[in-house]
Amino acid sequence: MTSVETSNVPWEEIPALLNVFWRHRTIRHFLPDPVREEHLDMMLWAAQRAPTDASAQMYTIIRITNPDLRDRMATLAGNQQHIRDCAEYFVICLDVYRLRRLVEHRGGRFGMGNRLALIFGTLDAGLAAENLALAAEALGYGTCFIGGIQNAVDVIARELNLPPGVLPVCGLCVGVPDPEHIPPEPRPRLPRWAVVHENGYRDYTHEDLEACYEAMAPISRSRDWYRMLSRYFTDTGIMVQREPVMARAWEQQQLSPDERAAT
Amino acid sequence: MTSVETSNVPWEEIPALLNVFWRHRTIRHFLPDPVREEHLDMMLWAAQRAPTDASAQMYTIIRITNPDLRDRMATLAGNQQHIRDCAEYFVICLDVYRLRRLVEHRGGRFGMGNRLALIFGTLDAGLAAENLALAAEALGYGTCFIGGIQNAVDVIARELNLPPGVLPVCGLCVGVPDPEHIPPEPRPRLPRWAVVHENGYRDYTHEDLEACYEAMAPISRSRDWYRMLSRYFTDTGIMVQREPVMARAWEQQQLSPDERAAT
Repeated sequence: MTSVETSNVPWEEIPALLNVFWRHRTIRHFLPDPVREEHLDMMLWAAQRAPTDASAQMYTIIRITNPDLRDRMATLAGNQQHIRDCAEYFVICLDVYRLRRLVEHRGGRFGMGNRLALIFGTLDAGLAAENLALAAEALGYGTCFIGGIQNAVDVIARELNLPPGVLPVCGLCVGVPDPEHIPPEPRPRLPRWAVVHENGYRDYTHEDLEACYEAMAPISRSRDWYRMLSRYFTDTGIMVQREPVMARAWEQQQLSPDERAAT
Repeated sequence: MTSVETSNVPWEEIPALLNVFWRHRTIRHFLPDPVREEHLDMMLWAAQRAPTDASAQMYTIIRITNPDLRDRMATLAGNQQHIRDCAEYFVICLDVYRLRRLVEHRGGRFGMGNRLALIFGTLDAGLAAENLALAAEALGYGTCFIGGIQNAVDVIARELNLPPGVLPVCGLCVGVPDPEHIPPEPRPRLPRWAVVHENGYRDYTHEDLEACYEAMAPISRSRDWYRMLSRYFTDTGIMVQREPVMARAWEQQQLSPDERAAT
């Protein structure tokens, strides 16, 4: 085991409770074994223990157990085989629909703009998803977050029968890792000074950006992080193609910023 | 210790690694003790180990150590004294600015619509924030997420010198809990069936919504969750007041959905 690159603390001194952060790998190859029922129970319990703004729990987890639907989800996310292979697959959504129903059930007039719904809902979904993933890893399972649902988030929302105010944020695969395919090292990260600023944002120099690329080089055999970044984040990249899909999904789910809230 | 309400697993059988989820309380009263330097190091390391879409690390953590700035942050978040009292206070931001700089540094044309930036950036910020908070709790500290930064997120973004493409998502207090003020019980949560759906969204009946209110009743002495919800989520509530602030902040930080990306 190499030392903890971004930490000054010797690995041996990090409490056992933190090992799970270090052991984290993205797992894309799973054995056919199921997740034990009591483990699934613990994972979902951990997800629900996540902090949540104003105790409002503005997220929903859709567990996909139907094999045909699982196959369809894999196809829609860019044909990702691990979505078919993993023992459990979850679509984690922001959800202000339930909150609306709860407020109206007591005779209140629901009031929340869509900008706040998008930010707080995505935050709540992320907090719950990370608890779910960490609990799974603590129990010995492997996990893989799926950003590829954004390739077809509008279609996915319809196929999961999501009401207005609910939007898929990410997918999450959980299963027993195939020991033949566990990445030996965790992925590199940016230097801490590039991510953590003190008392205000400090802009990056030419040398800073070079140092960022150097730190991230181990991410691929070519040692060229830009090759990966350019696939996603240039004007011909994947993110640009996803933007109109997201625009349609926001409109379809009545989450566009200046839309009058659905009644 | 009461049993785990939302779980069928006896408390004794939950592995020690998961205890941290159960021990989680929101802490708003802190002793004046600092966070030990090696613990701060571990927390920030854990934050950086969080999963991140396309390894792009679309978040930034601003650590607020300057006492005057800390005081100002407390005032802007609705005069929350625990922001002044806690040993460490972080403002966790979505950040696509660094990514743009990295792409342009290699001569690429950055391309990412603001809808994707808002969702992926908020998700990355949430995953990192939860790792930071869980590491702090594993080390024995108390934490409190701060949604109140959304009361003045536009002003906070300016005072932290955030460039275009960076937006505060939440605050996070960390410190040694005052043992006199640790909530004895974790806060209630919705029944699992209300949050976890299988293969598609199942709408809620009148009885379902009643059961949700019943499950959440222990949240306050009045046993009336609606009183809390209505403060935030009705047409005269806090969220409605925050929406124009968020609109200004998105515009100011050049993150409005249909804005041409800054160059």
